[in-house]
This record gives sequence, C-alpha cells and structure tokens, in this order.
Amino acid sequence: MIEVEVKVRAGHSKVRPILKKMGAVKLGVERQSDIYFAAPHRDFAKTDEALRIRSLDGQAVLTYKGPKLDGVSKSREEFETPVDEAATIQILHALGFSEAGLVRKHREIFSAGDIIICLDSIESLGEFLEVEIVADNEKDLETSRAKLFELLKQFGAGEKDSIRTSYLEMILGKSNHQETGKNSN
Amino acid sequence: MIEVEVKVRAGHSKVRPILKKMGAVKLGVERQSDIYFAAPHRDFAKTDEALRIRSLDGQAVLTYKGPKLDGVSKSREEFETPVDEAATIQILHALGFSEAGLVRKHREIFSAGDIIICLDSIESLGEFLEVEIVADNEKDLETSRAKLFELLKQFGAGEKDSIRTSYLEMILGKSNHQETGKNSN
Repeated sequence: MIEVEVKVRAGHSKVRPILKKMGAVKLGVERQSDIYFAAPHRDFAKTDEALRIRSLDGQAVLTYKGPKLDGVSKSREEFETPVDEAATIQILHALGFSEAGLVRKHREIFSAGDIIICLDSIESLGEFLEVEIVADNEKDLETSRAKLFELLKQFGAGEKDSIRTSYLEMILGKSNHQETGKNSN
Repeated sequence: MIEVEVKVRAGHSKVRPILKKMGAVKLGVERQSDIYFAAPHRDFAKTDEALRIRSLDGQAVLTYKGPKLDGVSKSREEFETPVDEAATIQILHALGFSEAGLVRKHREIFSAGDIIICLDSIESLGEFLEVEIVADNEKDLETSRAKLFELLKQFGAGEKDSIRTSYLEMILGKSNHQETGKNSN
C-alpha cells in the first residue's frame, strides 16, 4: 500500500463550503506538535534521517526515520515507541541532540469516497489542503494522482500548485523556491 | 532522602534460613533485564553517564543518568520514560548507539524493620545480598551504614566484603580488584 498525497495552499474559509457541497464527511480533529531533533554526531539533512517526537492529543511518540531505501519510492525504515514527551526531550538534550524545528499542526480530517481530505493550519505557515488516497500498488500511482488533481480542481487548484516541500522544510526556510503556488488559493 | 546500600557476595541457600529466623517479610520478586548502551559520539565511561533500557516484568523504561553532581554524594541527574523495548533498541542502533553490557537480574525482596534486603541472582556473576536503608539526610548516613553492617554480621559478612563495583562494571570486567570479599559467603 502506498500513500499518494498532494498538498496545496488553500484558505479554509473558501474550502469548507465546497467540502459541504460535495458531501464530504468530517472524521475528526487532531492537534499535532512535532519536534524534530538534530544529532550531535551527524547531519540528518545529509544522511536523510529524521528523529521526531510527535505529540498527538496529549500522547507522545518518538519516531526515527531512516534514509529512503531507493530513489523511486518513499519507502524508508521507521521505528517508533510511545514515550513521555518531557522526559524524552530531557534525555535527548542530555545526549547532545538539539531541537531543529517545531511543526504545530491543527488538522481537520474529512473523507470523500476513498479520498481523505485534511485541512491543515500550520503555525507560522498558514492554511493548507492535503488530499490523500491509498494506492494498492505502484501501477495505481498515476491513476490515484490523477484522481486527486481532479478533486483539487473543485478547489481551484492544479498541478502547478502542488507543494512537495514538507512543513518542516518550509519552516526551516529550505527549498522555498519549490513552492510555486503560494498565492493560488 | 539518601539510599544507603551495601552489597556482598552471599550464597542464597545460606541466607534464606537466617532471613526466616530474623522474621524478614518477603515483599516480592522482580526479573530485571538492563541493557546499557555506548554512545557513538562520546565515551560514557569517561563522562560518567549511562543510557539504559530496563525491562522489569515486561515493562520497559529508558533511563539517562548524568554525571555525579559532586564528589561526595551519589546525586546525579536522571530522566526516564516508559518505552517499547524492541522499537527503542532499533532507534538507538539506527542512531549509532551500541549495546555495551547486559545485566540480567533475578531479585527477591524482603524487609526487616526499616531495612530492605535483596537476594540478587545475576546471570554470569552469581548470587549476592544487597541491604538498603533510606536515610533522611547526610547526618544519618554513618548511622545507617553501621546499622547495615550490624545486620550483615548475621550473614557472616563484614566491611571487607562490601562490593562497590556495579554489576555492569563486574560484567564488563572493570575494577574487579575492588571486589575483595569474593569468597566470604
């Protein structure tokens, strides 16, 4: 199973009436706070690794993401454990890890058929729309992408508005030039 | 509050009848498995730090112990969080930490008045007796130590039998010369 995602900038006040019109069902609301850490002994940006504490509705999880396993898919090793957030931050600091970035996200989740639609408000970045579909295999990838862009048309967004930069990278000011559709919503 | 501890070698078959005679009360049994980790970027033996996963009756805890804060007491910073053991080992390995030592302990805990008596069986090391008392302040330290050695007399052990080396250090073969009372039980 492969998650196919497309993210665009979109003011939520314009998005909501369209969601309602298409009969999207609200699934829930999440408050995520992601703290990303830098290691004292190697540069995660260069090694394509990540160490993160995600706090979701009061529950914290420590996640390590390894380098992508190949150049095509987004597959990577991922290990995670529930933790006590405050103590884990203290342990990581004591070991020489430092906070590299903080992503605070308020996410409203909707479903429309087999598509998941997320209204993301990111602290210091603004409002986004992320649409997601789960493809069964590589073959369905293009079909799924096409389906997502077809949906996005209803919100006035096209392929050119797709943002490939992660929220963390946007916050860290990296690769901002990749974000072409800043004012398209 | 200060924990005052004294540890000696002692065959448990000789200890049990004495415990019974003195009316010690059995409080419980613990199976501890401690994995100590070495860091990729500094030598914990030199920095006087420790990173450990303790698995106690199926529950795992990650603990960081900082350097001793002064030369007199055993006080040190300590942070700990419950974790999933397998995932945390994978995360630490992926970050370059390696297993430095494993201490497997079977501990039976008894109380005799205000003294806690532990019968420790350590894999690859053998059987030990650890007696412990909680002193309210530094002033009571010497009184508490004297009380512990008075109790140990009943088991045929004296000050010369006291082992200051930790189980991990003993397993790693460090400071074995400090262990003077090896055959005293």
